[in-house]
Amino acid sequence: MNHIVVVGAVAGGATVASQIRRLDHNSEITVFEKDRDMSFANCGLPYYLGNIVESRDAILEATPEAFYNAKQITVKPYHEVIAINDDNQTVTVHDYQKDEVFHVNYDTLILSPGCSARSLPLDNDIVFTLRNMEDTDAIESFIQDNQVQRALIVGAGYISLEVLDNLYERGITPTLIHRSEHINKLMDNDMNEPIIESLKERNITYHFNEEIDTIKGKTVYFKSGHHEDFDLVITGVGVEPNSNFIKASNVTLDSHGYIPVNDKFETNIENIYALGDIITSRYRHVDLQAHVPLAWGAHRAASIIAEQIAGNPQIQFKGFLGSNIVKFFDYTFASVGVTPNELKYFDYSMVELKQGKHAGYYPGNTKIHLRVYFDKNTRQLLRAAAVGKAGVDKRIDTLSVAMANQMTVDDLTDIEVAYAPPYSHPKDLINMIGYKARNK
Amino acid sequence: MNHIVVVGAVAGGATVASQIRRLDHNSEITVFEKDRDMSFANCGLPYYLGNIVESRDAILEATPEAFYNAKQITVKPYHEVIAINDDNQTVTVHDYQKDEVFHVNYDTLILSPGCSARSLPLDNDIVFTLRNMEDTDAIESFIQDNQVQRALIVGAGYISLEVLDNLYERGITPTLIHRSEHINKLMDNDMNEPIIESLKERNITYHFNEEIDTIKGKTVYFKSGHHEDFDLVITGVGVEPNSNFIKASNVTLDSHGYIPVNDKFETNIENIYALGDIITSRYRHVDLQAHVPLAWGAHRAASIIAEQIAGNPQIQFKGFLGSNIVKFFDYTFASVGVTPNELKYFDYSMVELKQGKHAGYYPGNTKIHLRVYFDKNTRQLLRAAAVGKAGVDKRIDTLSVAMANQMTVDDLTDIEVAYAPPYSHPKDLINMIGYKARNK
Repeated sequence: MNHIVVVGAVAGGATVASQIRRLDHNSEITVFEKDRDMSFANCGLPYYLGNIVESRDAILEATPEAFYNAKQITVKPYHEVIAINDDNQTVTVHDYQKDEVFHVNYDTLILSPGCSARSLPLDNDIVFTLRNMEDTDAIESFIQDNQVQRALIVGAGYISLEVLDNLYERGITPTLIHRSEHINKLMDNDMNEPIIESLKERNITYHFNEEIDTIKGKTVYFKSGHHEDFDLVITGVGVEPNSNFIKASNVTLDSHGYIPVNDKFETNIENIYALGDIITSRYRHVDLQAHVPLAWGAHRAASIIAEQIAGNPQIQFKGFLGSNIVKFFDYTFASVGVTPNELKYFDYSMVELKQGKHAGYYPGNTKIHLRVYFDKNTRQLLRAAAVGKAGVDKRIDTLSVAMANQMTVDDLTDIEVAYAPPYSHPKDLINMIGYKARNK
Repeated sequence: MNHIVVVGAVAGGATVASQIRRLDHNSEITVFEKDRDMSFANCGLPYYLGNIVESRDAILEATPEAFYNAKQITVKPYHEVIAINDDNQTVTVHDYQKDEVFHVNYDTLILSPGCSARSLPLDNDIVFTLRNMEDTDAIESFIQDNQVQRALIVGAGYISLEVLDNLYERGITPTLIHRSEHINKLMDNDMNEPIIESLKERNITYHFNEEIDTIKGKTVYFKSGHHEDFDLVITGVGVEPNSNFIKASNVTLDSHGYIPVNDKFETNIENIYALGDIITSRYRHVDLQAHVPLAWGAHRAASIIAEQIAGNPQIQFKGFLGSNIVKFFDYTFASVGVTPNELKYFDYSMVELKQGKHAGYYPGNTKIHLRVYFDKNTRQLLRAAAVGKAGVDKRIDTLSVAMANQMTVDDLTDIEVAYAPPYSHPKDLINMIGYKARNK
């Protein structure tokens, strides 16, 4: 029987297995997961920790038993794929429960091993990372067992920000440190000002250009010389691709350890696909490599791989736009397009405005700061970023579709928004960006 | 000196005059307005009546004096243009304050006369229509002078719905009647069910297939035989184009009295443009005439006419998509594309879903009913409609950009939304529409 092997049972792996089964009722499908849990909703973990999401079952979407019964897909937790032999199409698997190593043949291999949280060299019981449900359960138990009052959040990426927000809302006093002044890196840094405001409003302590030197007991010694006691430290200082097991195979990795794939999510080796946080691909709107380790792309890839395997080669990926969004207290930060750091590859102009999200005379208004970058020569949209308390997601999703269609900044004047006073203006903010760009 | 004459000083007329002045500092610009007020925000009138918009000044955006001082544009209220002589480029104007008739030369004439509320043949002091600030002031005075408790709303178009919502919120008991069962016509009628629910929840009486027969004093006699007392009756039973003054000219009107324009908003007569509710144009995404009497189009037209006059002939209209939206109590109803009634011109299929606006495990979720129509042969999007308590405007605006770019229903799988649990799903509702359409 045809055997499809999937490495990793988190978002990408579990979804690709499901999508394949939807179209292919015959193949045997086996998913190996090195950790305890399958198919959890990673994006929900900070909210579970904040008690915002009340039910653990709501996050842990499936168990191997239920999954097998519903879809005849075998999921093997605590089974790590430790090597690929692509010449004879086998993988080497380490079963941690039996502590056995064995080989499995595959006809198709799908790699979705994801990334691991980078950890600081701190050997201390109060230090945790947050990457999966096991981490979340460990933090939750620790909070309850130790009546955690004060938590130190290290790093100011979007997961750290969500964790801080959620811990605060459940009554734990957070402190934030970040090793530079450049927080929430997917956003233009000057547009992160409402993060600082939100911290100040709530008297939440933060220190930038600060790192942990060492921790003794509950006392954290910082590189600045300052020291302070905390009950809990959660570090979010980046991730590393789980690609060590690939290195000895013929599957190409890039210099950072990620797997380049084509628009079918094929690796360089026949019958081996990859998806999720482990891949690098390309942008949709500009000619540039893109690494977008977010949920939308994993789900889109899962569907495309399933279509490829089912014999629909014409269904291919159109590239990433990098749409991303994070809630931090009352604010939403979102952007789409190339990152701030990648703008340097273009000859660009920028237009921005700060305007109420809807008609000035209608109550409940809040301002949106919207910024759009475009190529000076082609006038095509490169990047858009927005911050505000409401209406941010709408503008970024609208601009995402505009970018997907290679629209120019001038085309934004012609986007027909649905207008009534509670929702927009007769000239929406995205229209105004187009009008303002006329003289640029 | 070059003289630009504008007929009508409401949204379209006032905006086009402003836009022209932005690019043209020399021409004389005169705007004739038959009624009392210029440049009011029509869309805000129901909210002003509901005391939701507190300041009258917020709605009445400009006075002739302020407008002249800021822009050197002459606005003449109570001046009705009663005839156009396009052979010698003059208009005939009736000054109601002096009761004089005079002629004015124009080099460019811009027609933005709008529509009037159709009135029922009821000669009674308690009956009002709501179309402009004068109407609003009259209703407001009447409510205050007569301690209005019970109001009858006749007609269930979007303005009537907004008026009902607003009167209820200020403590007046509304009753709704409509002459058929087909309410809120821009929406698929079965998707209007939340309107009925909202009325029932609040014990608001409504009768469909009902009309007024006659009114004696405060007693309204209905065609059904029922009669009931009301303090106030507001009728919203359609509009008629203010185009009688055009009939004797060479400017073409369609059979309904509207002015067909090209993509430059030119009429068939040289040097005469038209915009606002009075025009008919074309759809952007399909080959069909479009009449979209809403604010976005008036504002877009104002800008394009100004560019035309300023010598930028390449800036032309790309056509309407018909985006529209209305809030009714807790719900938002929105759609884009051809109307339900116009679907008959196409060989179409439909896909729909009802799904939470964001990730299931994140609190505060509400469902959206999203429906998309597409051409069976080309697979291109024809129409989309959505109803729900939140997130409706985002989906419709996103689909508006998709339609503007001739995207197919299949292309919806590739729209990269900004996902985090409070905002969406890893596969957003618009993606799911694309996935569901695969087998259709």
